[in-house]
Amino acid sequence: MSGQQDGIVAVVGGGVIGMSAAWRLAVAGCRVRLIDPDPGFGGASWVAGGMLAPIAEAWPGEEPLLELGAASLHRWPDFAERLGRDSGKPPGLRDEGTLVVAADSADRAELDTLADHLASLGRTVTRHTSRRLRGLEPSLGPGVRGGLEVPGDLAVDNRITLEALRAAAESAGVEFVRAAARGVRSGVVELADSTGADSAVHCDVVVIATGAHAEELHPALRGAIRPVKGEILRLRSRATSIPPPRRTIRGPVHGRQVYLVPRADGIVIGATQYEAGFDTEVTVGGVRNLLADAERFVPGIAEYALVESTAGLRPSTEDNLPLLGWVAPGVVAATGHHRNGFLLAPVTAEAVVGLVCGSALPAEAKAADPSRLGGQQCTS
Amino acid sequence: MSGQQDGIVAVVGGGVIGMSAAWRLAVAGCRVRLIDPDPGFGGASWVAGGMLAPIAEAWPGEEPLLELGAASLHRWPDFAERLGRDSGKPPGLRDEGTLVVAADSADRAELDTLADHLASLGRTVTRHTSRRLRGLEPSLGPGVRGGLEVPGDLAVDNRITLEALRAAAESAGVEFVRAAARGVRSGVVELADSTGADSAVHCDVVVIATGAHAEELHPALRGAIRPVKGEILRLRSRATSIPPPRRTIRGPVHGRQVYLVPRADGIVIGATQYEAGFDTEVTVGGVRNLLADAERFVPGIAEYALVESTAGLRPSTEDNLPLLGWVAPGVVAATGHHRNGFLLAPVTAEAVVGLVCGSALPAEAKAADPSRLGGQQCTS
Repeated sequence: MSGQQDGIVAVVGGGVIGMSAAWRLAVAGCRVRLIDPDPGFGGASWVAGGMLAPIAEAWPGEEPLLELGAASLHRWPDFAERLGRDSGKPPGLRDEGTLVVAADSADRAELDTLADHLASLGRTVTRHTSRRLRGLEPSLGPGVRGGLEVPGDLAVDNRITLEALRAAAESAGVEFVRAAARGVRSGVVELADSTGADSAVHCDVVVIATGAHAEELHPALRGAIRPVKGEILRLRSRATSIPPPRRTIRGPVHGRQVYLVPRADGIVIGATQYEAGFDTEVTVGGVRNLLADAERFVPGIAEYALVESTAGLRPSTEDNLPLLGWVAPGVVAATGHHRNGFLLAPVTAEAVVGLVCGSALPAEAKAADPSRLGGQQCTS
Repeated sequence: MSGQQDGIVAVVGGGVIGMSAAWRLAVAGCRVRLIDPDPGFGGASWVAGGMLAPIAEAWPGEEPLLELGAASLHRWPDFAERLGRDSGKPPGLRDEGTLVVAADSADRAELDTLADHLASLGRTVTRHTSRRLRGLEPSLGPGVRGGLEVPGDLAVDNRITLEALRAAAESAGVEFVRAAARGVRSGVVELADSTGADSAVHCDVVVIATGAHAEELHPALRGAIRPVKGEILRLRSRATSIPPPRRTIRGPVHGRQVYLVPRADGIVIGATQYEAGFDTEVTVGGVRNLLADAERFVPGIAEYALVESTAGLRPSTEDNLPLLGWVAPGVVAATGHHRNGFLLAPVTAEAVVGLVCGSALPAEAKAADPSRLGGQQCTS
């Protein structure tokens, strides 16, 4: 379909990746059908925290992921602005940055590793005492043992963003097919819950963007993606509670990672990690750990209302980089985004448009080519 | 209306008390209208744990409450049997009894007070070592420091019971008026959300059974009832979790009361207590405490799914006894049941039938006469 802007593209999956790709493809002139039983709802994107934080999450050995993340972060302000314009619903990008804090001396040693790593890459972070941290965010509790100020990371409200993406895709002419896909072949998406004549969508190109469920759709993805369960809590401030912090607060608590992402009316707390297959039940142990760790950093959340406990499945690959490229003739993968679906949406959408329409690919997206995992190379 | 069985009785409130009274009044021959926007749902009865436990909850100084509770407990098997017969939905009475356990030596001293008190009333309880307790309920954790076996208490699934009561009331001829009441006068219930001709229900007798909201309905109840907020969690067992205990497990954890009531498919954990007005939000601090205390007694709940966190308002009086009797001509109060709505439903329904139809009142119900709170005596 290179160079043709009037073919039919079927995007399978209505999470942040699928809807971003569908919207940008439609804007680029493609006729797009987005296939999802309930676009925006119920999947990992609905559950997500909405941090756009490649820097605070950097780690030695994951330099290509940091580069890809930084490239996408750089695109976010423009992406958000277009999204607001096309949808009439600005996604409310927050730019207050992140405090990465520690709960004990071993946790602080982990932060030192992060700070040294970022410094070696030429990125500035500032080490702060607990006292100085509390000067920045007075809600931090006495259990905080120093930390880092990481400027530059962003955050969005994931659900407002999904709503905006749906509206933008719709206004760009994306046609929504409200059904689940059960298989993809070149030129065909078979639907699971339709009968008769409309049991398949025919197209020139298929984009597979069903997250952790991607590997069920096409043999080329088998074994390439595994679900990593994460539980997440949504808190709402009350008349009797202190206001949410301005920055994202995150870090290790006795070795266990927790984050608190501020919202206009509350805080999102995440996220546990389990290698437990396709399990999306919220467990007592998961909620207990999230609350304990989050209260360690911000004790005032005790007075917040706990309004939602959910779990989602991160689509994870062996190197934590997404799968972004051709996997069979006419079949593009845009999945495997692990914890970074929202962060990587702009660069992924741009890469998908590049792959489908023959325009230039972002340089950093090369590292995400599916051929790295040992499958054969495929160009269209 | 003494001696007349064909007058119209308006029962305001579709919780366990209102529906039990409506059902029994209809069976006794009254024409009953039950006024509630959504009978069975949303109120304290929907949130409740369903323990029928006057003995395990006995305390020195509350002898009249124990007598009333024991009288109602005694009626429960027959009440449940009739309810199953009239509704076709047996409420599933559980008779495995209760283990009251302790988490430290101060908690155990509290249990000694309870055991001595029950012994002085001629009730048998058995003191057990932790080891013996674990022989009875292998799911008890190493944090249990001895306890008591209290036979005789019962438990029901509150939601199955509410469903059965609605069905039984319906099949007995109760007419459901799906509206909220905003005021009660002798012979009239004014509705809040209706317009025009049907904005009031006219009747011979009104029974006020709106729990914590009762005092808003009639001046005679003003100041007599206060809401005591309680948070409660619902857990479901999973393929990877141990089965629920057979008995109710309850007791103090460092002075804070917690209970775990088994269900066919899980456990209900309750309940916090706050004097916080009409607040039904679930707080982070409440959930954290309930989980911590329940895990202290039964560590295996960590692997359960946390499926629901809710809060309800106990309708409480200054002596923890209900208000059960005439409060104005043609107006009966059946409220103030504090933590004991399910337990006291049979004796309350019998008392309401006695008051309305002129039949005999249960002797133990005398202690609940509203006149004890200083209002004037009123006989019909």
